[in-house]
Amino acid sequence: MIRVSVMGAAGYLGGELLRLLIGHPGVEVAQAISTRFPGRRVDSVHPNLRSQTGLVFSAPDDLTDGDVLFLATPHRTTMTLLPGVRDRAGTVIDLSGDFRLPDPAVYERYYGVPHAAPELLGAFVPGVPEMFRDDLAKADLISVPGCMATAAILALRPLAGLVGPDVQIDARTGSSGSGAMAGDGNLHAERSGAMRVFAPSRHRHEAEVTRLTGLNARMTATGVEAVRGVQVVCHATGTAGEREIRGAYREHYGGEPFVRIVAHRKGAHRLPDPKLLSGSNYCDVGFAVDGDRITAIAALDNLVKGGAGAAVQCLNIRTGHAETLGLGFPGLHPA
Amino acid sequence: MIRVSVMGAAGYLGGELLRLLIGHPGVEVAQAISTRFPGRRVDSVHPNLRSQTGLVFSAPDDLTDGDVLFLATPHRTTMTLLPGVRDRAGTVIDLSGDFRLPDPAVYERYYGVPHAAPELLGAFVPGVPEMFRDDLAKADLISVPGCMATAAILALRPLAGLVGPDVQIDARTGSSGSGAMAGDGNLHAERSGAMRVFAPSRHRHEAEVTRLTGLNARMTATGVEAVRGVQVVCHATGTAGEREIRGAYREHYGGEPFVRIVAHRKGAHRLPDPKLLSGSNYCDVGFAVDGDRITAIAALDNLVKGGAGAAVQCLNIRTGHAETLGLGFPGLHPA
Amino acid sequence: MIRVSVMGAAGYLGGELLRLLIGHPGVEVAQAISTRFPGRRVDSVHPNLRSQTGLVFSAPDDLTDGDVLFLATPHRTTMTLLPGVRDRAGTVIDLSGDFRLPDPAVYERYYGVPHAAPELLGAFVPGVPEMFRDDLAKADLISVPGCMATAAILALRPLAGLVGPDVQIDARTGSSGSGAMAGDGNLHAERSGAMRVFAPSRHRHEAEVTRLTGLNARMTATGVEAVRGVQVVCHATGTAGEREIRGAYREHYGGEPFVRIVAHRKGAHRLPDPKLLSGSNYCDVGFAVDGDRITAIAALDNLVKGGAGAAVQCLNIRTGHAETLGLGFPGLHPA
Amino acid sequence: MIRVSVMGAAGYLGGELLRLLIGHPGVEVAQAISTRFPGRRVDSVHPNLRSQTGLVFSAPDDLTDGDVLFLATPHRTTMTLLPGVRDRAGTVIDLSGDFRLPDPAVYERYYGVPHAAPELLGAFVPGVPEMFRDDLAKADLISVPGCMATAAILALRPLAGLVGPDVQIDARTGSSGSGAMAGDGNLHAERSGAMRVFAPSRHRHEAEVTRLTGLNARMTATGVEAVRGVQVVCHATGTAGEREIRGAYREHYGGEPFVRIVAHRKGAHRLPDPKLLSGSNYCDVGFAVDGDRITAIAALDNLVKGGAGAAVQCLNIRTGHAETLGLGFPGLHPA
Repeated sequence: MIRVSVMGAAGYLGGELLRLLIGHPGVEVAQAISTRFPGRRVDSVHPNLRSQTGLVFSAPDDLTDGDVLFLATPHRTTMTLLPGVRDRAGTVIDLSGDFRLPDPAVYERYYGVPHAAPELLGAFVPGVPEMFRDDLAKADLISVPGCMATAAILALRPLAGLVGPDVQIDARTGSSGSGAMAGDGNLHAERSGAMRVFAPSRHRHEAEVTRLTGLNARMTATGVEAVRGVQVVCHATGTAGEREIRGAYREHYGGEPFVRIVAHRKGAHRLPDPKLLSGSNYCDVGFAVDGDRITAIAALDNLVKGGAGAAVQCLNIRTGHAETLGLGFPGLHPA
Repeated sequence: MIRVSVMGAAGYLGGELLRLLIGHPGVEVAQAISTRFPGRRVDSVHPNLRSQTGLVFSAPDDLTDGDVLFLATPHRTTMTLLPGVRDRAGTVIDLSGDFRLPDPAVYERYYGVPHAAPELLGAFVPGVPEMFRDDLAKADLISVPGCMATAAILALRPLAGLVGPDVQIDARTGSSGSGAMAGDGNLHAERSGAMRVFAPSRHRHEAEVTRLTGLNARMTATGVEAVRGVQVVCHATGTAGEREIRGAYREHYGGEPFVRIVAHRKGAHRLPDPKLLSGSNYCDVGFAVDGDRITAIAALDNLVKGGAGAAVQCLNIRTGHAETLGLGFPGLHPA
Repeated sequence: MIRVSVMGAAGYLGGELLRLLIGHPGVEVAQAISTRFPGRRVDSVHPNLRSQTGLVFSAPDDLTDGDVLFLATPHRTTMTLLPGVRDRAGTVIDLSGDFRLPDPAVYERYYGVPHAAPELLGAFVPGVPEMFRDDLAKADLISVPGCMATAAILALRPLAGLVGPDVQIDARTGSSGSGAMAGDGNLHAERSGAMRVFAPSRHRHEAEVTRLTGLNARMTATGVEAVRGVQVVCHATGTAGEREIRGAYREHYGGEPFVRIVAHRKGAHRLPDPKLLSGSNYCDVGFAVDGDRITAIAALDNLVKGGAGAAVQCLNIRTGHAETLGLGFPGLHPA
Repeated sequence: MIRVSVMGAAGYLGGELLRLLIGHPGVEVAQAISTRFPGRRVDSVHPNLRSQTGLVFSAPDDLTDGDVLFLATPHRTTMTLLPGVRDRAGTVIDLSGDFRLPDPAVYERYYGVPHAAPELLGAFVPGVPEMFRDDLAKADLISVPGCMATAAILALRPLAGLVGPDVQIDARTGSSGSGAMAGDGNLHAERSGAMRVFAPSRHRHEAEVTRLTGLNARMTATGVEAVRGVQVVCHATGTAGEREIRGAYREHYGGEPFVRIVAHRKGAHRLPDPKLLSGSNYCDVGFAVDGDRITAIAALDNLVKGGAGAAVQCLNIRTGHAETLGLGFPGLHPA
């Protein structure tokens, strides 16, 4: 059994990690660390875990050694916290934004503060099994991309070489991406039914897409009515036809356990929709070709393939488990 | 022109009062009072009022004299605040819970604190035009009932004498009833899609229903997915047949401008549904009879007929305007 | 491996059965029968099953023999269909309403037509493991209760002997309970955000509650905004105190794998809410006591514990598998 | 009083026309024409009009003469129907897509059928008061643009000359845009919470945008969770700075009664969101500038400014009424 702990365990990503790890047959959850709720039962904060666990949150100072440590702590905080916990586990898997961008200048441009641990930036392997499976198998430091970045990277990667460099990404997201801390903008009466363009340009995930696809990505992000779910619609141009593009997707994803190609001619479900994916680790990718316009689309659950699920997939790869272990839930329909 | 001011103008009821009063042809809004946002534009907090008004919030200490003062301030605060502002306007219309229950012992039982101004309790006329129109025409102190109380009172009043004394009321409400202050339970990700029984029994509005209907009301309340909207389903028993009951509703409401009888045999809209009533001042009431079981149903927009709209209706009655003035919006379909 | 087939496999309950059965390690899905879509891929209708199965719908006439046959066919149709398929499997598990009420006169009162196979009515064991586990272990004909009936039965059963006979049940349900066939009332623009009292009294599930609890159940049903999820709020009266009532729930459900007692003093999740249960086989039950008023509450996913999940739980019991096999998904938070 | 009739009055646009026209002080609604429901009360189909009107639907053959005839009939049908009703009113205002594109070849490319009345195409004035006010004042044939087209045209028009010709438009829409006829894809359980890319490219409204802005518009359209509401996010490039762009918007819309500039630095409501606009005739437009990336955003209620409200605004202009008459509802917050 792999001994794992989760820091930031009271947040939404932390809770999703706990759901997946508690249900994982090869893993023992040693500690759920929370600064806010030490001593409280985990299921009092994550009520879906009732009868799944009797675990109680531990304080950060009580962190013990283990095999794998997950960091589901906030951006800008995690980089200050990492050096102090780096040695408590053989492998650290970070879900924050702090170690996704290897260039500290790019980090500062997108996060607004200088990086606190720039010397560690180069040591992290991106948590994208579809691109870095071999590296992940031996990585000690793993950084899971942003939810919208993962979606866009998986949508766009097969198009490299087939489309021009400029890509406009239109991302839509549910409210859970804003985390579990209440704020005026997250109040139900305000957020319900909204179409809120919270990043008209330069959403920070675009830097990750640019880095990992080689394209010049521009990302707009809008909050729409959903709790879970991210969808990206990527606008590119190129001369490849539909057959060639479908071939590229098949080549990249034919053997992938968690990427499905969804590009049908008709029907309500012809293209990727995160509505189908709540709780599942799938990223559905699809495309449409219309003359020189190539539209690539991806959908995922921001807390699963866009975060906790990708992290568990990385853990499976790193620890030699079957890559799909503990990640079998396919999603619901209708939902 | 009637000169009116609103205290608690930054809240949801306050904003709804402003929407109705700004659009009211017989009223001039003198001040919008807010402890949180003095000096800020009203439309920065209530964005639906953009281009409707250039009004800026005033601090409570700057309250000036006027004809009518609306209090949309919190329960338990309003009763301490009222004596100090009582003389700033000829008529005070209170939307809080503090002056709805004439017996201070009943108030304390339902609100958990002793009443701070018990000597004033008897001076308020309930803001229910359907019952107190004549009194309201000359009232200087008016207390608008709770949103679920208004719905239940209007649903049940025609049944007095036709049903037994015990009535079980099942109330459902949208999230705006919890107000504009963010809290853990109001976070979109938590509240969205919920069916939250927040008062399994003894919801405080039951005391108002008991008082104004003479029935022995018991009320359960559940938050369901909606921003606006209240629905009550009232379970009573009696021997009256459908014809007699329909007659009672018609007798009570045939001439009422804001109560509609909705009791059809079939169709998706056969019984009252608040979905149709957002923004409107209607309370739809309906019923179904099955042997000795009599089910009375009512729906309204908690911020309009359940609060600000009822208050404006009272203002119209008190100031001699047409009762429907400024309250003409009928609601949308679909919505 | 148990060989199972599903009739009515293109509907929502049929799809949920397929999801659970395809993921069940002790079961082989032989056939998915559909009158509408023979020859089409199952995942074209149930897109959450993409990459889970290559199964194609079969026509009813092509039904072959197997171990267990699930009927997810419509009310009133199933009773005419059952005699013809009774012998195609050792065990038949019916999810329709046609074999839930042993008295044909009661059936006719609630379903509006005479029963077509009254001689079979007595042969079915109700699919309520919490009451009939021993009988189910050897049952050849199993009838899964209605979704709201299951919720109410599990909420009320511990109260037998502690409350008076009359119980008013207020049931709320999501839209998936209306099935996968489009109709005017199910149109998104009409149904979204609705609070639709579609059964002001005498919802047909009340007959099942009356039968299995011995109480005199009256049920009102309202459609609220949700796709999945049922909640019942049951109003009873009695003299038992909270301690005694909690004891009764613990005695009944302490050892039950799929019933959790949720009755806390505070918090957004203090009482059962179906929002937490999408995809899971839990029925959460809770209660509140206030003087002589006893409110019992239950929540479940109408397609899982309220249908397909209960059916699979029955299959596990009948075939000697661990009762929880294939039913491990705990639900999501937030969702 | 202007005598008006509405064809297609049982649909959602028809119902919204009736709501606005019944509440319009300068208009008398002569007939509500419906092929499906002749003889039925209008409020049985549009329940928000209860107590607003006793009108009964008329059959198409019973159409009488009037001053203004509104066509809220389907695309592809309207062009065959128009010649036969052209003379029944001095002014015809069409809300379908059939007379929006003056070039029949473009029509055929986007609607898939040859135009049935190409000789009339050039006679229609677009129902965009912000561009064609003078022409509308004397127009006998008016064609209201598509809802997403209106939003995009109003968002982009001030940028003409300031941005390059290629514009990518990402449009999102609620479910009411699909009309009142039930279909599999519109079923609540299917459509609820969806992010459905129903037009990955070449949405037909792009042809209208191209025509009226002179830009080379490409439009993607996605259905998101909402009943009413359209939002467009338009991606352009240019060298103009924020000050210059704000100036252009002010110059175009400073005097417009129904276009508001919403482009703030922060806050949940900093950019246009249709959530605020249900029932209102506003189109909110905003923008963000980031280097050479210019993002223009617009939001409106598809049934009001995107259809019936624009049509009534055109009627006001054509008949010499105040342009805002009958269109005063400002929208709700929260909603």
